[in-house]
Amino acid sequence: MNFIKNRSELERDYLHRIALDVIEYGLESADPYNAVLSSISVRDNTIYIKNLEIKIFGRIHVVGFGKASKRMTNALYDVLSERIVGGIVISPEDPSIVGPVEVVKGDHPIPGNNTLRSSQKLLEYLQNNVGENDVVFILISGGGSALFEVPEHNITLDDVGKLTKELMRRGADIFELNAVRKRFSRVKGGKLLNYVKAKTTVSIIVSDVVGDRLDTIASGPTAPDETTYKDVYNILTRRRLWDEIPDRMRSIIEAGLRGELLDTPKPGDPIFSRVHNVVVASNAIALESMARKIEGYGFKPLILTSMIEGEAREIGKVLASIIKSIILYSKPIQKPAALLAGGETVVTVKGDGIGGRNQELCLSLAASIRGLETVAVCIGTDGIDGVSPAAGAVVDGSTVDEGYEAGLDPARYLENNDSYGYFSKIGRAIITGYTGTNVNDVFLALIK
Amino acid sequence: MNFIKNRSELERDYLHRIALDVIEYGLESADPYNAVLSSISVRDNTIYIKNLEIKIFGRIHVVGFGKASKRMTNALYDVLSERIVGGIVISPEDPSIVGPVEVVKGDHPIPGNNTLRSSQKLLEYLQNNVGENDVVFILISGGGSALFEVPEHNITLDDVGKLTKELMRRGADIFELNAVRKRFSRVKGGKLLNYVKAKTTVSIIVSDVVGDRLDTIASGPTAPDETTYKDVYNILTRRRLWDEIPDRMRSIIEAGLRGELLDTPKPGDPIFSRVHNVVVASNAIALESMARKIEGYGFKPLILTSMIEGEAREIGKVLASIIKSIILYSKPIQKPAALLAGGETVVTVKGDGIGGRNQELCLSLAASIRGLETVAVCIGTDGIDGVSPAAGAVVDGSTVDEGYEAGLDPARYLENNDSYGYFSKIGRAIITGYTGTNVNDVFLALIK
Repeated sequence: MNFIKNRSELERDYLHRIALDVIEYGLESADPYNAVLSSISVRDNTIYIKNLEIKIFGRIHVVGFGKASKRMTNALYDVLSERIVGGIVISPEDPSIVGPVEVVKGDHPIPGNNTLRSSQKLLEYLQNNVGENDVVFILISGGGSALFEVPEHNITLDDVGKLTKELMRRGADIFELNAVRKRFSRVKGGKLLNYVKAKTTVSIIVSDVVGDRLDTIASGPTAPDETTYKDVYNILTRRRLWDEIPDRMRSIIEAGLRGELLDTPKPGDPIFSRVHNVVVASNAIALESMARKIEGYGFKPLILTSMIEGEAREIGKVLASIIKSIILYSKPIQKPAALLAGGETVVTVKGDGIGGRNQELCLSLAASIRGLETVAVCIGTDGIDGVSPAAGAVVDGSTVDEGYEAGLDPARYLENNDSYGYFSKIGRAIITGYTGTNVNDVFLALIK
Repeated sequence: MNFIKNRSELERDYLHRIALDVIEYGLESADPYNAVLSSISVRDNTIYIKNLEIKIFGRIHVVGFGKASKRMTNALYDVLSERIVGGIVISPEDPSIVGPVEVVKGDHPIPGNNTLRSSQKLLEYLQNNVGENDVVFILISGGGSALFEVPEHNITLDDVGKLTKELMRRGADIFELNAVRKRFSRVKGGKLLNYVKAKTTVSIIVSDVVGDRLDTIASGPTAPDETTYKDVYNILTRRRLWDEIPDRMRSIIEAGLRGELLDTPKPGDPIFSRVHNVVVASNAIALESMARKIEGYGFKPLILTSMIEGEAREIGKVLASIIKSIILYSKPIQKPAALLAGGETVVTVKGDGIGGRNQELCLSLAASIRGLETVAVCIGTDGIDGVSPAAGAVVDGSTVDEGYEAGLDPARYLENNDSYGYFSKIGRAIITGYTGTNVNDVFLALIK
């Protein structure tokens, strides 16, 4: 594969070439089509999915939702072909057909009528076509939360949207948001399983959530939910919203508190004995692939974490401090070493430059590794870094001085959030265009 | 030893106790008296200093400068006692006597007349008393740059002070500052060795500089200097100061550029064959001691780096992401694990609370490790964290909820830079008072 379009510009020496090879490899392993294809195989009447073996007795159905729906469906169809009898998959793209599976349109990032109509259609498919002995594949990827939704009771998408916005404004985190939203949905928080009669359901998951929490990716439609009506009551009270939400929402929560409503299935619920949740692509998996690849080049890999969060320029300094420690103290590992990390940083924009979190991390890091023998890359696996046309950047010990020589002051570019401005001028921005996947960002540093 | 004064309040369980034990141990190893005492021994006519063996033929002299001067002198005297014939040591404390060594006063943090007078006295001692076959110990610790200084030529302390301030205002980093200051000093940048006739000089160093660069600690009086007059000219030009500095400073640099002045001794200069620079206490050494200690408790230690820099609250998030990765993915190491790191973060103060970088890091980290089984400590080894009376804090997975229960919103305390306000109210601030050393900050997290 060849994701990086300007390799010849970027490949300054052997070390750069290896770094870019490894990044290519990471992107490849994160590709939804590749990820499904390489995780699933079939022989006789058995489907093998990673460590799982599934005997096929009945028919095979495919449903799904997410930005990678269509490519995941293509891959699954390329593996199972005519064994699949049908299904409905929701995608942000225009409607199409993959074998017997219908690809229908949903709305992203704000769910609307397309999402509602397609989601109803998906549920109807499951209810009308799936038997107990059938196998149901559920293809889940980022964006699934908006592309697939049926509100509970008499609540509207608009009610949920407004409440979500207000909660965010008041500082609620993703866990609080999900706890609330799961109460007003017929499918989130494991509730989708209520519509699946099959004894064997396999959710194939491409994770765009830092930490790969199954109850968070696409709001966890097939995963146990630990939150309760009581939690939601506490959240709304703490955020001073309890008296402000529409009566119909408050009544639902009150009924839930009185135990009059069925809540989301909890961990240990027998419903989960029928489902396997398998993550086939994620930041952690991409880092693992990269680590294996780099070992082949003779570098000892160390995966720090796949869950980095925080301000990009500060994370750049921390990663630089670990690179320096490897060079000076052989800690945490000895050279030749490869430091790997992933996650998703943020940029607090103060300037008016063109950049993104990955390039900003690289620019900050470049200042801290000045003069050192190392090559580092940071890249958004979706191929689009912030508001720039680049995916990320590649830097080394000479990047800052190269800027000086070209009349660029890296500190000023950093201050103006103009990391792309800086890297594009010295030929260090990595260009891929949309890659068709998203497992967040990956970072790699090679220390010879 | 017992540095932590409120241990009974902090020791909530077994894991907390181990964490605090290890921190105590780290502080102990960073103590200048302990560090010198445990690094140096003498048998017959040989002094052993770490991997070094020094045969004593002549007499032993002791000079030194830095905040830890006196305690280092005490330790050296406790090892070598009457073998020491005399010396001059500059300290911020009031004058005193340690055996035959005179402790004289210097100025800190701004060098003034005390520093000038004491520094002259130290140089005269070296010139008048040291023979070729003698051994000279030079005790160097943080603050040494201000406590020991003799300006070059006709330059005054005031000239250098003003230029330093102006360079800092214009964004110069510590390396630029040092390059400039070394040109106007008779002792910085290895030049102190010009005053030492002895064939054997041993610099015993307590490092308060992140990264332990010998050319940076106390401005590297006995270390090779890689910077030149040309560098200084470039720095002053780049910072637009070349035309603004006093004529007498400009003439010196011009003479230097013409090769008319002797520059600082460079790496490879034969003068360095006569000197051994030995770091006996540093952040890296403290982390190593802590790592060895924690292994005894059955935890696998991983030292990330001793060179962390950056905004405290962001560093807290990164460290939390690594803790989470250990718990969820057994990366970078398997449980039971101890994650160690050191360095010095900063806090960009926006609120009006009471706190410090270590406690702010802990408060930010606490929010990210909510519900997880881990105990983490971050502490300034000097015992004083920012503007608070605490040295740091100890946090775990319940710290955020404890705050909620006590009516404290951790996010608000963090926003107001009131980390001490938060931790003192829930009994999680670590109180030591001044410890008498400074090897920056140390961080430890235990994951069971």
